[in-house]
Amino acid sequence: MPNIYDSAYELEKAIRESEEFKNLKTAYETVMNDPTAKQMFENFRDTQMELQEKQMQGLEITEEEVEKARTIVEAVQEHQDIAKLMEEEQRLNLVINDISRIITKPLEELYGNPEETN
Amino acid sequence: MPNIYDSAYELEKAIRESEEFKNLKTAYETVMNDPTAKQMFENFRDTQMELQEKQMQGLEITEEEVEKARTIVEAVQEHQDIAKLMEEEQRLNLVINDISRIITKPLEELYGNPEETN
Repeated sequence: MPNIYDSAYELEKAIRESEEFKNLKTAYETVMNDPTAKQMFENFRDTQMELQEKQMQGLEITEEEVEKARTIVEAVQEHQDIAKLMEEEQRLNLVINDISRIITKPLEELYGNPEETN
Repeated sequence: MPNIYDSAYELEKAIRESEEFKNLKTAYETVMNDPTAKQMFENFRDTQMELQEKQMQGLEITEEEVEKARTIVEAVQEHQDIAKLMEEEQRLNLVINDISRIITKPLEELYGNPEETN
């Protein structure tokens, strides 16, 4: 019988050694080592988080804020290294979503089909 | 090098075969096989979700709703089988949180310590 914690650490290792994670790391370091790109990326992140928090709190997002976010997103997408980083983030996110779907399957089966639990 | 998907399926198996999951399954089935308990539990779940959704949308929760929720929680806590189910849910949740912490560690290290990535 596999042990949960051993299996979790094994999976962590697999993620760490995967091409997807290594590529993300390289893309992230490239951006972080370029002060202009770093600032642009962090600015983008901060703006995203601010808007998300506002949305979650049900607060209104002003037209000005939407416009500011749009400008930042456009700038970021045109920066090759940041665009690459975002692409690698999306790629790893797909993998993480797959993992999440796989490991929550037992719970989903249990709670999703109460009539089939006997 | 361990493969991500192999490791994820191994972890899923470990969860499914764990004492924590088996105990939760038993507790869940006990409640689902008792029509009164089942209805009480589902009522509790529905109320919880309703309130959570309202909160996330930033909608106001009335005093009446708070009172209704309190009554349901009290009834549920006094029902031995449902209390047991909730206890087993919490126990498995701790494990799931541990797993989540373990497998997101590579990302956390990368994003949490930008000055250490060189």
